[in-house]
Amino acid sequence: MNFLLLQPDEVDEDGLATLHGRRARHLAQVLRAERGQRLRCGLLDGMLGEAVVEAITPTTATVRASFTRPATPVHDVLLLAAPRPKVLLRMLAHAAALGFARVMLFRSWRVDKTWLQSRAFDPDLQRAQLVLGLEQAGRTRLPEVLRFDRFKPLVEDALPTLALPAQRFVAHPAAHNSTRTLGPLRGPFALALGPDGGFLPYEIEQLQSAGFCPITMGAHAQRTETALAALWGQLDLMRGRATFGKE
Amino acid sequence: MNFLLLQPDEVDEDGLATLHGRRARHLAQVLRAERGQRLRCGLLDGMLGEAVVEAITPTTATVRASFTRPATPVHDVLLLAAPRPKVLLRMLAHAAALGFARVMLFRSWRVDKTWLQSRAFDPDLQRAQLVLGLEQAGRTRLPEVLRFDRFKPLVEDALPTLALPAQRFVAHPAAHNSTRTLGPLRGPFALALGPDGGFLPYEIEQLQSAGFCPITMGAHAQRTETALAALWGQLDLMRGRATFGKE
Repeated sequence: MNFLLLQPDEVDEDGLATLHGRRARHLAQVLRAERGQRLRCGLLDGMLGEAVVEAITPTTATVRASFTRPATPVHDVLLLAAPRPKVLLRMLAHAAALGFARVMLFRSWRVDKTWLQSRAFDPDLQRAQLVLGLEQAGRTRLPEVLRFDRFKPLVEDALPTLALPAQRFVAHPAAHNSTRTLGPLRGPFALALGPDGGFLPYEIEQLQSAGFCPITMGAHAQRTETALAALWGQLDLMRGRATFGKE
Repeated sequence: MNFLLLQPDEVDEDGLATLHGRRARHLAQVLRAERGQRLRCGLLDGMLGEAVVEAITPTTATVRASFTRPATPVHDVLLLAAPRPKVLLRMLAHAAALGFARVMLFRSWRVDKTWLQSRAFDPDLQRAQLVLGLEQAGRTRLPEVLRFDRFKPLVEDALPTLALPAQRFVAHPAAHNSTRTLGPLRGPFALALGPDGGFLPYEIEQLQSAGFCPITMGAHAQRTETALAALWGQLDLMRGRATFGKE
């Protein structure tokens, strides 16, 4: 935590916030913060700014925060076939840190049914992971997490009606299109990742009908967790570079 | 495991291998393999090919393997400030799956000294994780893992004498150079990743003297695990695309 994320109801009208628990202990014991020290901070779902430590003990900290700069807006959407519970919780933190605005968790054929009943679907546990990801990356926008227990309602009912970015990709090691031959991107994208065994051909077809272009990073299939960061890196790079040559 | 990785001493001169333990159980119980079934396979540090199941019980499997194609050669090098033990073991699997030929683990200022005494430095545990990564990605070359308990001997003695790729990058959120403005890459690269709190300015200077160019993916710092996959994705993309426009 190099970045202090504050919740709106913690901050009074003078910008004062008194912290207990994890963040206070981290400030006192890891960062060894002292009175007068300045920290980068942000307001959950709000702006970025700076906090000054006004008082500190080993277990409580009082800071005065001011929020002066807008946070980077986020619009990307992650569609994620529910991985096993421990991996799901980690991936929620990754997704928040990478700047996804929405995570749509779903069950596809190769997703173990019991995983959707696991504690990794506890909203409080999910939120805690999302907050850790935001703190890591110095972001403030809490991703919205949606859940679809069946694949068909997701592709037939939800995808056509939800506002999703027009640029849509589904990771598919057997895809014909490689990220090496994609043209430049503009603005937000939606990225769908299957379970570790991959999507069924039928599921890929359904996602294609919903506008998702199957893409591969190459011949070597990666775990979902690695694929998320690597594909995000590639798509974000193609969006960020000013120009690309033609292949 | 969609890919059966065999060790040279398991395979007799007729290509027959009898498996017990994890791989046999996976074939029998997860893949429900039957006699006659064909699987992709590879020989550790060797070629790729196909294996045919000759006999199978719930706990043993006999396969006949033939190795006919060379594996993708790997030459990239990862320099990794030792993360906490659980993360290190996961990252070794990621590194093997992404195709690093060598992983140089080291201690920098912000690495907890006790982590280098942890079980994550047990060579057998490390090897097991590397093998899992190879199986995931259908690769065969076992990465070499080197260990440097002090930073200075690494940069002053090892880096100048070891054969390292000429293209060298160090991940540094505060870097002036962004991956968005890098030119195209050719061939292998070395990538250095610091601990979660980052490198000290002095350490960055030392790495720069050893030919490492500090680069950033943007304003949002990621966990080491996410940074590894995202940066690999970006560098591999820049190497794989035929051309890039000028910025």
